[in-house]
Amino acid sequence: MTTASVDVDTARRDYAALVDRGLSLDITRGKPSPAQLDLANGLLTLPGDGTFKAEDGTDVRNYGGLKGLPELRRIFAGALQVPAGQLLAAGNSSLELMHDAVVQALLSKLPGAERRWADEPTLKFLAPVPGYDRHFALTERFGIELVPVPMTDQGPDMAVVERLVAEDSAVKGIWCVPKYSNPTGVTFSDDVVKRFATMTTAAPDFRIFWDNAYAVHHLTDAEPALADLLALATEAGNADRVFVFGSTSKITHAGAGVGFFGASEANLAWWVGNIGKRTIGPDKVNQLRHALFLEDEAGVRAHMRKHAEIIGPKFEAVDRILTEELGDSGLATWTKPTGGYFVSLTVPEGTAKEVVRLAKEAGVALTPAGATHPHGDDPADAVIRIAPTFPVLADVEEAVRALAVCVRLAAAERA
Amino acid sequence: MTTASVDVDTARRDYAALVDRGLSLDITRGKPSPAQLDLANGLLTLPGDGTFKAEDGTDVRNYGGLKGLPELRRIFAGALQVPAGQLLAAGNSSLELMHDAVVQALLSKLPGAERRWADEPTLKFLAPVPGYDRHFALTERFGIELVPVPMTDQGPDMAVVERLVAEDSAVKGIWCVPKYSNPTGVTFSDDVVKRFATMTTAAPDFRIFWDNAYAVHHLTDAEPALADLLALATEAGNADRVFVFGSTSKITHAGAGVGFFGASEANLAWWVGNIGKRTIGPDKVNQLRHALFLEDEAGVRAHMRKHAEIIGPKFEAVDRILTEELGDSGLATWTKPTGGYFVSLTVPEGTAKEVVRLAKEAGVALTPAGATHPHGDDPADAVIRIAPTFPVLADVEEAVRALAVCVRLAAAERA
Repeated sequence: MTTASVDVDTARRDYAALVDRGLSLDITRGKPSPAQLDLANGLLTLPGDGTFKAEDGTDVRNYGGLKGLPELRRIFAGALQVPAGQLLAAGNSSLELMHDAVVQALLSKLPGAERRWADEPTLKFLAPVPGYDRHFALTERFGIELVPVPMTDQGPDMAVVERLVAEDSAVKGIWCVPKYSNPTGVTFSDDVVKRFATMTTAAPDFRIFWDNAYAVHHLTDAEPALADLLALATEAGNADRVFVFGSTSKITHAGAGVGFFGASEANLAWWVGNIGKRTIGPDKVNQLRHALFLEDEAGVRAHMRKHAEIIGPKFEAVDRILTEELGDSGLATWTKPTGGYFVSLTVPEGTAKEVVRLAKEAGVALTPAGATHPHGDDPADAVIRIAPTFPVLADVEEAVRALAVCVRLAAAERA
Repeated sequence: MTTASVDVDTARRDYAALVDRGLSLDITRGKPSPAQLDLANGLLTLPGDGTFKAEDGTDVRNYGGLKGLPELRRIFAGALQVPAGQLLAAGNSSLELMHDAVVQALLSKLPGAERRWADEPTLKFLAPVPGYDRHFALTERFGIELVPVPMTDQGPDMAVVERLVAEDSAVKGIWCVPKYSNPTGVTFSDDVVKRFATMTTAAPDFRIFWDNAYAVHHLTDAEPALADLLALATEAGNADRVFVFGSTSKITHAGAGVGFFGASEANLAWWVGNIGKRTIGPDKVNQLRHALFLEDEAGVRAHMRKHAEIIGPKFEAVDRILTEELGDSGLATWTKPTGGYFVSLTVPEGTAKEVVRLAKEAGVALTPAGATHPHGDDPADAVIRIAPTFPVLADVEEAVRALAVCVRLAAAERA
């Protein structure tokens, strides 16, 4: 990126005026807005008076059913690209399923593994960057070394991935958000997915953590197809390398949705054997509530269009204002996602932290610079994640305009 | 127990008649009956149309709130004997909280610990017997050795507990169901609780897993008081040794309730720091649903009286029929619990497995003999757990009468 000259006096004056406005705005996290949550308020009175039987007659109020309700698993099988029989419906969070997958692998030998991960001398995960801070934090906590892999506009740089997984058996996993990736918005290309399915790994117990968090979260009618990793890997004899995760958190209610885990039969047997010691079953009442509310795959699709109507204009506003404020400055590039929850803004090297600091002092909270990288360290100090869904449109516009002021000042003072 | 003589021909004839009846009854697990679940059907339409704000204004539909809703924590603070500020409300299961406490201790150093449990050469838990099979299975899975401790009618034999925890730093924990214990129905005496609070442990990171599953589950008006372990331990400078667990599973809906975890501030900081990497918060909508339904501590008490009206007669039937069938036989003793979910039946040594087998062949499913002991092994082969809550009263009566036939036959054939 070429850094155009910025008049430092103008930049300072603009910033002083911004601070004087005393804003208090927050575009830090990928949270749905109240208007989005309202779309699922039907859940607040479901499953309804006297309704507590699943389609197979199970009393959802009682214990049992480790795999979750078949009717709900069926609704999401298509979107998550996992046969319903291999897709489990669980608690209110997919993050906890990813965490527990790592924990179970640490403490109980995975199918194909020579030993428990806890007994390995070194553990590494590949981390496409920029990526999702909660993925990184989860693995870092267990002392798992994160090896950055550059993201391209097709997905992770597969030449790098293939080399690392082939040469080092300590590399046990990779974090992926394959559709509308967090934070770049990229959907992995067919070639990338196919290479994931067929690549040679040194570790017999390598796992792809396929966090398909935004499977149905389209912002436009242009819905990019994602190749079916589990099917391709199964075809290639590598079924066990795939762990699929998903949830309704950004479909219905963020804190009260249903998480999903999909995998091969061998992985599922391992999973169910382990969680059977942990729980007598998930909240099936909430699963029935969701099945009744969403009805079927078409119901999910119709529901997601209402989300797009609310948040689409916010994403358009981010792009419009960044274009107005920084478009011809040479100071920034940014993604124009057609789905998901984030815009990734790239500012001049060495200024991202300063931009976030300046914004904070002006009353605009941003995700910490570096959060998109392992250990919170973006070596170029250039990537800022924008999460425009939660605030109302006017606040998004104001926050992004303020952000542009901070980008200009940081660049000017660095020049 | 003296084993009176039983006429083997009579016993065989009775058993043949029983088999001929082709029963199909199940008194295996501590599950609430549909009639009990019906008591909480108000939950099926709660929190209600447009109701999604907690008392502090939190939108329960969105992410966040690792500690759970204060209004719900307050309702259960008294019953669980944990100050509301130190009591966390979580997901739908307390078993998973116990599991995760063990997992977190394995992988992240506990307050006071010298190292992670995973890095200890040997790990042991004390297991009061007879006890709860799911507790045992959870710890066995991680290779934790279970050391049996006899239960008395006052709680675990504290002379044994004190000796074991004082002399062996590999002993890291003990499983306790302190009120209406599973399966004996014993409530720990004040002396036992006080000794737990004050005893000297060789391990600096010893933890009492205080599973107060039946805190409010009275069957009669005689409600035994349980001393406040956390308060006593805190007073003795041992606050960190206490992990309290509880849940609404057998209060509202077994599969869709709320679990609780209570502990010292240091333990809570450790816990929240760990689960903060796992989840963005529990299902707060379900917590609000419960707070609205139960209202307050008096609401819980009133609700539990309705349970007692349903299951009290089932426990009375167990006692009445065992008395009628075996009372003067000298073949069996059994507990007469005033709360909780189980009756513990003791049959002549070496016959429990055979009784369960005979019952199964006659169409009456019982919890496997030995399940009340670590590794499923009751050395005396004498304890059978009866769970009378789930079947309707007539089926409980029939099942227990059938059980008595099997007890008589097993004893006669062994004689």
